[in-house]
Amino acid sequence: MKKLVLIPDSFKGTMSSIEICDIMEQVIRGHFKEAEVVSVPVADGGEGSVDCFLHALGGERVEKKVKGPFFEEVEAFYGLVDGGKTAVVEMAAAAGLPLVGNRRDVRATTTYGVGELMLDAAGRGAGKIVVGLGGSATNDGGCGMAAAAGVRFFRGDGKAFIPTGGSLGEVADIDLSGLDERLRGVDIVAMCDIDNPLTGPQGAAAIFGPQKGADPETVKELDKGLLHLSEVYEKVSGRQLRQQPGAGAAGGMGFGMMAFFNAPLQMGIETVLDTVRFDELVSGADLVLTGEGKIDSQSLRGKVVIGVARRAKEKGVPVAAIVGDIGDGIEPVYGEGVTGVFSINRVAVEYRWAKTRSRDDLRLTVDNLLRFCRGMSIG
Amino acid sequence: MKKLVLIPDSFKGTMSSIEICDIMEQVIRGHFKEAEVVSVPVADGGEGSVDCFLHALGGERVEKKVKGPFFEEVEAFYGLVDGGKTAVVEMAAAAGLPLVGNRRDVRATTTYGVGELMLDAAGRGAGKIVVGLGGSATNDGGCGMAAAAGVRFFRGDGKAFIPTGGSLGEVADIDLSGLDERLRGVDIVAMCDIDNPLTGPQGAAAIFGPQKGADPETVKELDKGLLHLSEVYEKVSGRQLRQQPGAGAAGGMGFGMMAFFNAPLQMGIETVLDTVRFDELVSGADLVLTGEGKIDSQSLRGKVVIGVARRAKEKGVPVAAIVGDIGDGIEPVYGEGVTGVFSINRVAVEYRWAKTRSRDDLRLTVDNLLRFCRGMSIG
Repeated sequence: MKKLVLIPDSFKGTMSSIEICDIMEQVIRGHFKEAEVVSVPVADGGEGSVDCFLHALGGERVEKKVKGPFFEEVEAFYGLVDGGKTAVVEMAAAAGLPLVGNRRDVRATTTYGVGELMLDAAGRGAGKIVVGLGGSATNDGGCGMAAAAGVRFFRGDGKAFIPTGGSLGEVADIDLSGLDERLRGVDIVAMCDIDNPLTGPQGAAAIFGPQKGADPETVKELDKGLLHLSEVYEKVSGRQLRQQPGAGAAGGMGFGMMAFFNAPLQMGIETVLDTVRFDELVSGADLVLTGEGKIDSQSLRGKVVIGVARRAKEKGVPVAAIVGDIGDGIEPVYGEGVTGVFSINRVAVEYRWAKTRSRDDLRLTVDNLLRFCRGMSIG
Repeated sequence: MKKLVLIPDSFKGTMSSIEICDIMEQVIRGHFKEAEVVSVPVADGGEGSVDCFLHALGGERVEKKVKGPFFEEVEAFYGLVDGGKTAVVEMAAAAGLPLVGNRRDVRATTTYGVGELMLDAAGRGAGKIVVGLGGSATNDGGCGMAAAAGVRFFRGDGKAFIPTGGSLGEVADIDLSGLDERLRGVDIVAMCDIDNPLTGPQGAAAIFGPQKGADPETVKELDKGLLHLSEVYEKVSGRQLRQQPGAGAAGGMGFGMMAFFNAPLQMGIETVLDTVRFDELVSGADLVLTGEGKIDSQSLRGKVVIGVARRAKEKGVPVAAIVGDIGDGIEPVYGEGVTGVFSINRVAVEYRWAKTRSRDDLRLTVDNLLRFCRGMSIG
């Protein structure tokens, strides 16, 4: 084989996509020493997403001091890829759960630092900013981020403030006109793999509030705050966004991305495929190796393997999916471009044991597939 | 692909080799409609071995009334393959555990009917007789079989008798000269995958007696009887056989095959490979699919996958091993001709669950391997 493209999702709770790429590449080197190996660990927008993009594309990791979840100074970062033309920001770097430690006060947290990172990237000339939603400690509907970028929020008394989850109910007016010059004309895209609406029983507060430390009382307050924010926004802009799928992602950050930056919410895999220019990358490849923790009938709904397969199919490149479990009802995946699916399970043991040996088992599975290719005189 | 050879072992306790071949063939038909598929379910000498050979080679299943384990009449059978030139006898058909039901009196059981089947096959002109050892209800050292074939056993008083497990101690002399004319010049081979000696702590009585119903007292008696038989035999023939690997197979039938017919004991897989003329069969094949319940470092000691791989390697044909579990330390198998090993495990569950879904999982695994072959433009 002359060229292989590696583009796996992480196996959640087991291996990161970067680890998987590394193992796959090592195995390939053992069998096809001269092959070109293109490694694209897939990011989902959460923690580690910037590193995934840098791993895939090379580029610069920019360190930057910004406001953290409690408006304190934190050392955050983002990535510049594509010769600096595209920036990748993961919101978790400035507003992530690991930053708050045991202080889980989701009423007080802000996404302000995310906006600062975006401004910094735009200031350095990035024409496109990809913002990964996920892993957030916030429920501010993206107001902090917007405030950093020049959007102004007013209380009933006309005083400007920066709303957080606990003070969203105080927003009386919003001035969208002050958006920072640096962001004008910048193409902003949000990576978001969930489709919860902003409010209600499936909304940001109800579903994700508790894991951020909100008790039932606080969940109600947060949900009410987000509803109020969206109503004020609707009055100001004429746009009704709170039912949009993904509006409720990352404490309403999905809503904020759409509302304040007009940014589309995109599946992580689609963003990755676009950003790495997968169509060009895959041309001339003999094989694509992708994978995810479990493939099943849900996988057709835009998960990584299917996203990769659909694009590879257009270019006529075969796709092997290396996965943890293979569930039932996967037949439709073949029509979407998956050539073959291979589970790394190689002994009959429960998941709690299987996960401890996943690296070895992945290695062995890829090794045997490549041995088979070589033995069958492929490449 | 134009030609595939299927030659799997059974997955013990899960699927017979015939079932595995059938599933593999069905899957192949879905992908390579025109391919020639040669199906050789591997027999180990135990119950079902005749059917395996008939499945692989075609031929005649001969029904024959003979003496059963308690000298009662039973309907037994053997196979004639290779245009009648080779007979396959499984001893279990005339002396197997299922024939005794709950009456587990291993002191009284005989292999007489096995000898009758052999004579019948020889009488029909078979120049070679393969006798599968395994699944026996007997511990007679093959004396019953030998008696049916003309060997005579005498008590101290000079009276001829047919020894069984419980009366081996009474054998005072053996006359080997009366072997039936029909068996002269016939090539007799015993299939035997175990290497226990005839007597002692690893011998036939100690290791296999209990599962045939022998209590500790009886085990001692049986072991003593086999020792006595071998001593008398040694006096008569000058040959010491009781330490030979496999002498203790099937209640000392291994000993009996060597002692009375000068038959070599051969691994099941080697017998199958020879009998089906594997070297001819595999020539021109694109792929061999073999397999076993578990592949591990033990597999190098003559198990099915390795046996198949060694022969296929000589002919330059790639071998995919489809297995249950993949143990550790399998690296050496690649050097022996195994191209790739693929586990049918596709979800992380314990064996007790995995076995209930093995047919589906085998089907899916082979299906994906063949899809991959097709997608990679093999065949």
